[in-house]
Amino acid sequence: MRFDTERWRGYWQGAWHDDLVAAFVVSVLLIPQSLAYALLAGLPPEAGLYASLLPLVAYAALGSSPAMGVGPVAVLALMISQAIGDAPAGATPHAAALVLAAEVGLMLALAGWLRLDALAALLSVPVLHGFETGAALSILLSQLPVLAGASAHGSNLPQVLQSWIGAQTPWLPLTALYGGVALAALWLSRRHTMRLLARRLSPRRAALLARLAPLVVLMLAMAVAAATNAGARGVELVGALPELAWGAVLPPLDPALWRAMLPNAALIALVTFVSSLVVAESLARRQGVRIAPRRELAGLAAANLAAAVSAGMPVAGSFTRSVVNLDAGARTRMAGVFTAVLMGVAMWLLAEPLAMLPTAVLAATIIVAIVAVLDWRPFGAAWRYDRIEGLLMAVVAALTLLAGVAWALGVGVAASIALLLRRTARPHVALIGRVPDTEHYRNVGRHDVQLIPGVVGMRIDESLLFVNARQLSDVVLQQLGRYPDTRRVVLLMSPVNRIDFSGLVALHALHDALAARHVRLDLSEVKGPVLDALHGGGWTQWFAGRVYLSHHQAMEDVHEAPHLR
Amino acid sequence: MRFDTERWRGYWQGAWHDDLVAAFVVSVLLIPQSLAYALLAGLPPEAGLYASLLPLVAYAALGSSPAMGVGPVAVLALMISQAIGDAPAGATPHAAALVLAAEVGLMLALAGWLRLDALAALLSVPVLHGFETGAALSILLSQLPVLAGASAHGSNLPQVLQSWIGAQTPWLPLTALYGGVALAALWLSRRHTMRLLARRLSPRRAALLARLAPLVVLMLAMAVAAATNAGARGVELVGALPELAWGAVLPPLDPALWRAMLPNAALIALVTFVSSLVVAESLARRQGVRIAPRRELAGLAAANLAAAVSAGMPVAGSFTRSVVNLDAGARTRMAGVFTAVLMGVAMWLLAEPLAMLPTAVLAATIIVAIVAVLDWRPFGAAWRYDRIEGLLMAVVAALTLLAGVAWALGVGVAASIALLLRRTARPHVALIGRVPDTEHYRNVGRHDVQLIPGVVGMRIDESLLFVNARQLSDVVLQQLGRYPDTRRVVLLMSPVNRIDFSGLVALHALHDALAARHVRLDLSEVKGPVLDALHGGGWTQWFAGRVYLSHHQAMEDVHEAPHLR
Repeated sequence: MRFDTERWRGYWQGAWHDDLVAAFVVSVLLIPQSLAYALLAGLPPEAGLYASLLPLVAYAALGSSPAMGVGPVAVLALMISQAIGDAPAGATPHAAALVLAAEVGLMLALAGWLRLDALAALLSVPVLHGFETGAALSILLSQLPVLAGASAHGSNLPQVLQSWIGAQTPWLPLTALYGGVALAALWLSRRHTMRLLARRLSPRRAALLARLAPLVVLMLAMAVAAATNAGARGVELVGALPELAWGAVLPPLDPALWRAMLPNAALIALVTFVSSLVVAESLARRQGVRIAPRRELAGLAAANLAAAVSAGMPVAGSFTRSVVNLDAGARTRMAGVFTAVLMGVAMWLLAEPLAMLPTAVLAATIIVAIVAVLDWRPFGAAWRYDRIEGLLMAVVAALTLLAGVAWALGVGVAASIALLLRRTARPHVALIGRVPDTEHYRNVGRHDVQLIPGVVGMRIDESLLFVNARQLSDVVLQQLGRYPDTRRVVLLMSPVNRIDFSGLVALHALHDALAARHVRLDLSEVKGPVLDALHGGGWTQWFAGRVYLSHHQAMEDVHEAPHLR
Repeated sequence: MRFDTERWRGYWQGAWHDDLVAAFVVSVLLIPQSLAYALLAGLPPEAGLYASLLPLVAYAALGSSPAMGVGPVAVLALMISQAIGDAPAGATPHAAALVLAAEVGLMLALAGWLRLDALAALLSVPVLHGFETGAALSILLSQLPVLAGASAHGSNLPQVLQSWIGAQTPWLPLTALYGGVALAALWLSRRHTMRLLARRLSPRRAALLARLAPLVVLMLAMAVAAATNAGARGVELVGALPELAWGAVLPPLDPALWRAMLPNAALIALVTFVSSLVVAESLARRQGVRIAPRRELAGLAAANLAAAVSAGMPVAGSFTRSVVNLDAGARTRMAGVFTAVLMGVAMWLLAEPLAMLPTAVLAATIIVAIVAVLDWRPFGAAWRYDRIEGLLMAVVAALTLLAGVAWALGVGVAASIALLLRRTARPHVALIGRVPDTEHYRNVGRHDVQLIPGVVGMRIDESLLFVNARQLSDVVLQQLGRYPDTRRVVLLMSPVNRIDFSGLVALHALHDALAARHVRLDLSEVKGPVLDALHGGGWTQWFAGRVYLSHHQAMEDVHEAPHLR
C-alpha cells in the first residue's frame, strides 16, 4: 500500500465528513461496550477503553476492510475470562490479558507470514454459528446477576449460575431498578425512537439521531446516580478510572504466564481471525468490494499488538459496530482513526461522569446488543438441509454454554473433519447409460437411458483419495457381478477432481483385477490436472486402456471394435 | 454363514488334501517365526506357539479370506514390545500381552458391531507402507545383536543400538557362528534349492520341497547344538518350554493394567485390521474373489480373543505366510485349522529338540523373512507421483525407526488428513468454453474453445465444503472482474459431488452478490443427489436462476434470451 498524496488531499475535500459522522455514532456504542466487555472479561474497565484507542489506528493502517469496527467484542471477552482462569497464581488478570493480546498478535502475524489464512476454513458454518450463539447466550445469562445487583463469579455459565444461586443477596432492589429501567429504555429506544423522530426529520437525520439514544440513556443514568449518591446506597458503579498512563502497563515477560496463555491464545487468534473475516466479507458483499484475507491478518495482528503495548485487551472486528459504521456512512478506514480520536476525547471529558455509571446499566447495554445479534434461523436451516450438521450446530452451542469455549471449538472442528472424511469415504456410485438421442450419460436409476451390452459405464462421484481408494475395486467388481459378459468398463472421470497416491495404487489394482478377467478398463473425460498427475506418475507403464475426451466417444468406440460385435 | 452338509461332505472328498499340504508348508515357517516373534515382543517363546493354535481355528470359524495365514506377526511383535514398556510395575510382560490381545479383540468386535470398518481408511498407502518399512527395518536392525550373541535391550531402535554399543560383550564368537551360518544357509536355500531340486523333480514338487529347506536348517542347528552342548559354551538357547497348561494363564483383571494398555491396544487394533485387510485384499485379487471387511473384523476379533484366553499374544494376518499358504495350494480356511493341528503335534513332538535351538538361529529366520518383504519401489513411485506423499512415506518410516510406532502413526494420520483438507481447500478453477462443433466445454487455458460474450461458464473442480466454501464468491467475482459486461454466470456442477451446509450458505451468498450486480447465476449438470439436497434445503425460496441438464443447453439458452442479443 503506497501512500497516494492525491487521494489523501481528495479525501480531506470530501469523504472525511462522512467518516467523522460515522465515527461519532460508533463511539456512542463503543464507550459503554468497551467498559462492559472489559468487566465481562474480568478486567478493570479502562482495559476496554484503552483497547479502543491505538488498536483502531493500527487496524486502519494495515487492514483491508473499509468499514470494519475493531475493538473489544463480547465473544472474545468470554474467551478471555476463561483463559485468565488458567493463569498461574500471582499474575493479575490484566497482565494475563496483555500477554494474550501479544500472543494473539504474534500468532496472527506469523499466520499471515506463513500464508496460513486457509486455516480459517477449519471453522465450518455450523461450528462458527453454534459457537457464536452459545457464546452470546452464555454472556446474556451471565449478565443477569449483574443486572440484578448480585455478585456471581465463574468462567462458564454453570459456575456463574451456581454462585448466583448460592449468593447471600440474590438481588439488590435499587441496582435492579437501575438495570431494569435502563434495559427497558434501551429496548424501547431501539424499537421506537426512529419512528418518532421520522415524523419531524428527514429519514437520514432521524436514523442518525436514533443511534444517539443509548448515549442519552447512559447520561441520564449517570446523572441520576450522581444526584442520588447511588454508590453510597450499595449500587455498584464503574468507579474512578486511573490516569492515562500506558507505559506503566506492558505485558510482563514471565515465561510461565506466556506458556500458560499459549493454547488459549491459539483459540482466540483463530476465533479473532475467522469472526472478523466473516464480518469483513459480509461488509464487502454489501459494498461490492473484495477483501484480502492476508491483509486482514496483518491488520488484526497489528491491532492486537497495539492493544498489548497500550494496556488494552485482545480485540477483533465487531459485527454490530461494523454494520452501524457502514449504515452511518463510513467510507474509508479513516473512520476508525476518527473513532479512536473521539474515544480519547470522550475518556478525557467523561472520565468523571463515567465513574458514576452503575454496572447494572452496562449489563443492560450488553444484553440489548446481544439480543440484537442472536439468530436462530440458521439452526432450522441447517437442520432442514442436513440433520447431522444441524445437530452439530446445536451441540457446539450447548458445549459453549455448558463446557467452555475450548471444548466446544475442539469438538466442533474434529466433528466437521470426521464428517467430511466419512462422506468422502462412502461415495455415491452410479451405473450410467445414454439419454436417448443425446451425447449425455446419466444414472440408470434416475433416468430412462440406453445401455450397450458388454460395456459397463460407471461414474464414481468422488475424487480417488486414501479415504475411499480401498473400496474402488470392490465397488466396480460388485457392478460387474450383475453384468457377467462385460468386456469393457468405462469410468466417467468428470467427478474425479484429484487422485492421490493411494488412489493411484487402487486404480492400478482395479486395472489388474479387470485384466485378469479379460476386461479392459477405459477412462473418459479425465480432467487436465488429473491426467497430468497420472502421466507424471508413469502410468503408461501399466495402463493398457484408452482415455477418451468424452464418455460418448468412449461408448461409440465399442461399435468399431470388431471383437465386441 | 450357514453350515452346508453337502459342501462339507464334498470337501472331505476333494479339497482337504490340498489344504493339508499347504498347512504342512505353513507350519514349517510358523514354528520358528512364532518363537522368534514372541522373543522379539519380549515374551516367553511359548506365547508365540500358543498364539498359533486356537486363534487360527477362531479365524477359520468367523473370517472371510480363504488363504489368510493368521498368527504372530513381526510388526505386532514390535508394537507389543513397545506397549509392554507402558505396563505398570508388577505386571509381567506376558500378562500385559494377554490384556492387549483381549482389548484388541474386544475393540475389533466393537468396530465390527458399530460398522466402523471404514476407519481402516485412515491409514493411507504412504502411511501404511512407510510404517511397515520402518517397522521391518527396526526389527531387522534389532535382531543384529541377537545374531551376534550380545544382550541388547530397548523398545525402539536407538535404545537397542545404544545398549549394544554399551554392552560388555558386543559379540560371542560361537553364537555369531551359529547365527552367521544359519543366515547364510537360509539365504542360499531361498535362492538356490528350488533350482537344484527342479533338475530332478516336477516343478510343483520341487517348489514344495524347497519350502522345507528352513526346517532342515533348524533341525541341523538343533542337532549340532545338542551334540556339542552349546548351551554350556555360552550360546543362548530357546530353553525348555513349560507344560501345555492354558487355563493357568489368563489375562489378569487388573484395572490399572487394562487402562495402561488401552491406547496401545487401539493402535494395535487399527494396524491389525488394516494390515490384515491389505493381505486379504491382495489374496482376493489373485483368487478373483471378494472379501467382506466386517467378516474380517469378526475373524480377527475372534482370533485375538482366543489368543487372550489361551496364553498367546495379539495376532494378525501375515503377508508372508498367507502367500506361502496360497502358493502351496490352500483352497479353504480349513488350511488354517490343519495348521493349528500340525502346530499342536509339532509342539508335542518337538518340545525337547526346540529347547536346544540357539536364539541366534531364530534371529536369522526373522532377518531372512524381513528382507524378503522389504520393498523400496513404492517410495520411488510415491515420490514421482507426488513429492509430498513420497516425503510423508519417508517421514513415517523414519519416525517408526527412531521415535516409535505411536508417533509414526499419529503423525502419519494427522498429516494425511491435513493434506486432504489443504488440497480440498484450494480447488482448481477453470473458465470453460465450447470445443468448436461439439457440445463439450473445456478449460479455456488448455483447449482452443469458443466463448459467448456476456456469459461466463465456469467449473470449480471440487465439492462445495466448509474447507473451501468461503472462497466461492471471491473466486467467481475475480473471474467476473475480467469480463465486466457479464450478464449471466453458468456454473458447471459436474465436479461438485456434495454441498454441505457451509457450501449452501456460500452458494446463497454468491447468488445474492451476483444479483446485486444484475448478473444471473445458473447451474448446469447438477448431480441428482446434490439437487435433491438443495431442494430439501428449500433453495427455491432464494434461487432465481435455472438448472440445466447439460452445460450446452445452458449456453445455447443465451441466444434465445432477447435481452442478451
